[in-house]
Amino acid sequence: MDKLARQALLFDFYGELLTEHQRSIYEEVVLNDFSFSEVAQDQGISRQGVHDLVKRSTRILEDYEEKLHLVEKFVTIREKVHEIHGLTQSYEDSDLNQIMTRIEELSHSILEEL
Amino acid sequence: MDKLARQALLFDFYGELLTEHQRSIYEEVVLNDFSFSEVAQDQGISRQGVHDLVKRSTRILEDYEEKLHLVEKFVTIREKVHEIHGLTQSYEDSDLNQIMTRIEELSHSILEEL
Repeated sequence: MDKLARQALLFDFYGELLTEHQRSIYEEVVLNDFSFSEVAQDQGISRQGVHDLVKRSTRILEDYEEKLHLVEKFVTIREKVHEIHGLTQSYEDSDLNQIMTRIEELSHSILEEL
Repeated sequence: MDKLARQALLFDFYGELLTEHQRSIYEEVVLNDFSFSEVAQDQGISRQGVHDLVKRSTRILEDYEEKLHLVEKFVTIREKVHEIHGLTQSYEDSDLNQIMTRIEELSHSILEEL
């Protein structure tokens, strides 16, 4: 996963644990790709202030993930469900039993993790 | 879901966000079903102290869930994956296409939530 996708996921999962101010700055810089200078001007704070807020918010989100591992867990589950969904999309009737066995394996391994 | 199952799930998801002391008291009382008096004696604190710690820890876990809704999300996903897994366990060959359609629907709806 690239850095931005990871940052977006961390924000998705734990963003509600930031303050509203941290959340809005993080969103503008990281997700909406505004520059530090643009956000600084918009919010009436210094460029360094924006930089520090983003750094601190990233640290908070990473700390939650380090303790809870929910993004990691969710990414693993999503990959497996994607594979299940893919298997239902294109198959020959002759493969059906084999496909069902694979779906069984995948769903079983998801349940082990949940 | 009954109250104990919910408390166990909340602890599973967010327990790492409690202090070690809160976590160990919560575990003894809620998950291992020791009485307030037993835990009080064991930890060298008052019965009221144990009561307050459990109440406070429950509140903290509930607050995280209120913000993040991750237990709710995972419970929904787990139910759907259970259904997928069940569908792979017992089927007649004649139903295969119908079952595959249902698995497709379920996996699609999980991906919408993830």
